[in-house]
Amino acid sequence: MTGHGGNIYAASRTTGIPEDRILDFSASINPLGVPETVSEVIRKNIRNLPNYPEPFAEQLSAHLGKHLLIDPQSIICGNGSTELIYLVVRALTPRKVLIPAPTFTEYERACKTRRETSLFQYDLSPENSFDIHLDTFIAAMHGCDMTFLCNPNNPTGRLLTREQVIKIAQAAQQSQCYLILDEAFIDFVPEHSMVSEVEKYSHLIVLRSLTKFYALSGLRIGYGVFPAALVERLRSHKEPWTINTLAQRGGMAAIDNKAYEKETFEVITQGKLFLEKGLDELKIQYVPSYANYYLLRLANAREVVVSLRNKGILVRDCSNFPGLDGSYIRVAVKSPEHNALLLKELSGLCRG
Amino acid sequence: MTGHGGNIYAASRTTGIPEDRILDFSASINPLGVPETVSEVIRKNIRNLPNYPEPFAEQLSAHLGKHLLIDPQSIICGNGSTELIYLVVRALTPRKVLIPAPTFTEYERACKTRRETSLFQYDLSPENSFDIHLDTFIAAMHGCDMTFLCNPNNPTGRLLTREQVIKIAQAAQQSQCYLILDEAFIDFVPEHSMVSEVEKYSHLIVLRSLTKFYALSGLRIGYGVFPAALVERLRSHKEPWTINTLAQRGGMAAIDNKAYEKETFEVITQGKLFLEKGLDELKIQYVPSYANYYLLRLANAREVVVSLRNKGILVRDCSNFPGLDGSYIRVAVKSPEHNALLLKELSGLCRG
Repeated sequence: MTGHGGNIYAASRTTGIPEDRILDFSASINPLGVPETVSEVIRKNIRNLPNYPEPFAEQLSAHLGKHLLIDPQSIICGNGSTELIYLVVRALTPRKVLIPAPTFTEYERACKTRRETSLFQYDLSPENSFDIHLDTFIAAMHGCDMTFLCNPNNPTGRLLTREQVIKIAQAAQQSQCYLILDEAFIDFVPEHSMVSEVEKYSHLIVLRSLTKFYALSGLRIGYGVFPAALVERLRSHKEPWTINTLAQRGGMAAIDNKAYEKETFEVITQGKLFLEKGLDELKIQYVPSYANYYLLRLANAREVVVSLRNKGILVRDCSNFPGLDGSYIRVAVKSPEHNALLLKELSGLCRG
Repeated sequence: MTGHGGNIYAASRTTGIPEDRILDFSASINPLGVPETVSEVIRKNIRNLPNYPEPFAEQLSAHLGKHLLIDPQSIICGNGSTELIYLVVRALTPRKVLIPAPTFTEYERACKTRRETSLFQYDLSPENSFDIHLDTFIAAMHGCDMTFLCNPNNPTGRLLTREQVIKIAQAAQQSQCYLILDEAFIDFVPEHSMVSEVEKYSHLIVLRSLTKFYALSGLRIGYGVFPAALVERLRSHKEPWTINTLAQRGGMAAIDNKAYEKETFEVITQGKLFLEKGLDELKIQYVPSYANYYLLRLANAREVVVSLRNKGILVRDCSNFPGLDGSYIRVAVKSPEHNALLLKELSGLCRG
C-alpha cells in the first residue's frame, strides 16, 4: 500500500465492486478524461512498441521547451514527477530537509531512503487556512540544504503567489538550500508558475506533471526544470527509458490540445463554484482551494470514508498526512453530475 | 546519449532517414512485433488512463506468479529490469561489486551512482568464447558483496547452464555476496532459468524482462524475483507507479499468448540457422549464441557501422563495452527477409 488516493484496484478488492464502477474522488484528475488527440496518438504508436523509447525523452523535452518558452536543455522528463522527487534526493544528497506538514507524502518517503538525511517539519495550521507564513518558513529553511514546497499545496489547495515564491527562492539561494518546488497542480493557476524563473536562481528546481490536468495518471509523465549547473549531475543519476513510448508521444499531443485546456478551465471553475455553494449549504467546513480538490473537515471523517467506499465512492482519507488529525478528507472536483452525487451522499452522512 | 543500441531516434536525427524507415539490428527485439492480444488490451485500456496505475503492479505480479509457479509476494515489477538494477544497488548498498566484462553496461552505471561502491572487473576472453570459468569466477566473487551475472550474456549470447549457475548461487550464499542474475534473454533457453530456485537461496536475485521476447521495449516491463527476507527492504526503496497502466495490462496479456511464444521459437531458431550459415559462408567470425543476437568480430567494424547506418541499418557498435576492443558489432536475429538483407549488406562491406 502506498497510502495515496486513486487506488481503485485495492478499493475494488476490498468492496467487491468492479474497478470500472468505482467513482474516484480520491485522486484529483480532470473529469474530462483522456484528450481524444492523446488517445489517437497512443493507438497509432502501438505498432512502434518494439523499439525502445527515447532514453531521455529528448523530443518531449524539446516540445515542452517550445511550449513553455524555456531552454529544453534545462528539462529532465520523468516517470511522473514522483521519479524526479526521488532523483533530486539521490543526486543532491541533502543532509537536512525542510518539509511542510501536511503536504504530499512522497517527499518524506524519498528522503527516508537515505539514512544520512534528517527531516525537519514546518507545521501548517488550520487556524491559518494551512497557509505558509513567509518569514517563519524562510527562517526555518536556514541551516537546511533542501526544502520541498508544493504549490498549490496538496492536500490543502492553498497557493503561494509568484511574488511570494520568488522571495522564498531568493532566500533559498542565499542559504544555499535547494528549493524543490512541486507545481503538480499549478496548471489550474498557471500565472503563478515559476518555470520561467529557474534560470535566474542557482537553487530553484521546479517539478511539473501532465497527469492531473490532462487526466493521464495511468500514463506517467512528469518533468523538472533545473538550473544549468545541476542538469548533468541529475542526468548522471537518472535511469534511462523510464517514460515509455506511449507516454512520450501522448504527452506531446496533450500539451498541444488548446481546446481541451479551455474546456478544462470551464468545467473546473463551474465545478468549484457548485461544490463550494453545496458545502456551504451543508455547513461542511472546507479549505478555500486554488486547485481541483478540497480539503474537508468532518467530525466523523472516518465513518464518511467507509460509508462512501461501501457505495463505491472513493474519497481521500487524510489521516496519514503528517500534520493532519483524523478529521479530514480530500475530494476532487469532478463532472457536474458526479459533484452533485457527492454532495447528495455527503448530506446524508456528515456532521461538520 | 546512453551508448546503448536501439536508439532509432538519434539515428534518424544523424542520418535524416525517418524513424519508421530505419531497420534496427542494434536492439535484440522479437521480429514478430507486438502480439495482437497486447495491442488489443492497450487499445481497450486507453479510456482507463485517468486512473493511476496500481502502485506496485499487484495484479501483474499475481499473474506472473501463477505463470512461473512461484509466490507472487517474491516478485517486484519494474519499469523494465533496468529500474530493478538501480533498485538493488540503492537498497542493498554494496561496497564491492564484481562485474564481468563485456556485459550489459547499466550494471556499472548503476553502481557508479554510489561513491561508496568499488567495482571489480572479471575479464571474459575471446579465446575462450567469452565464457565464464566457474572456479575463477567464484574465487573472484570472494570478498565482494554483490555480483552481476547476465545469462545468456549480453552482448556475447553465451550461456551458463542451470547447473553451473546453481554452483555460483551456492558459492554466493557462502560468501554472503548478492548474486544479481539478469535473465533478460533467458526466454530463448527457458529451461535454464533460475526463477524457481530463488526461494532456496538467501543471496540470489533474478531479474527478468518482457521487453525482448514480446517485442515491447517501448512499453517498459520487467520484474525481479527476490528472497523473502529481502522483499520489504527493496519495496521500501522503490518508487510507486513506475509501470504505467498500459504496460501492466499489456504484460499480463503477453504472457498468456502461447501461440506467439511458439511462433517466436520457430522464427528465431530458423533465423539463427540462416544467419550462422550465411556468416560462415562470408567467413565472418561470430560467437555462438544462445540468445537472439550475435557478437561479430570484424577487422573494419567501425567502417561497417557507419556504412550501414548511412543506409538506414543500425547495428550495435560494441566499442563502448568494457572488455571489448573496437572490432566487434552485435546484430539481432530478425525476420527472414531482414536477415537476408543484413547478410547481403555485410557481404559487400566486411573484412573478417
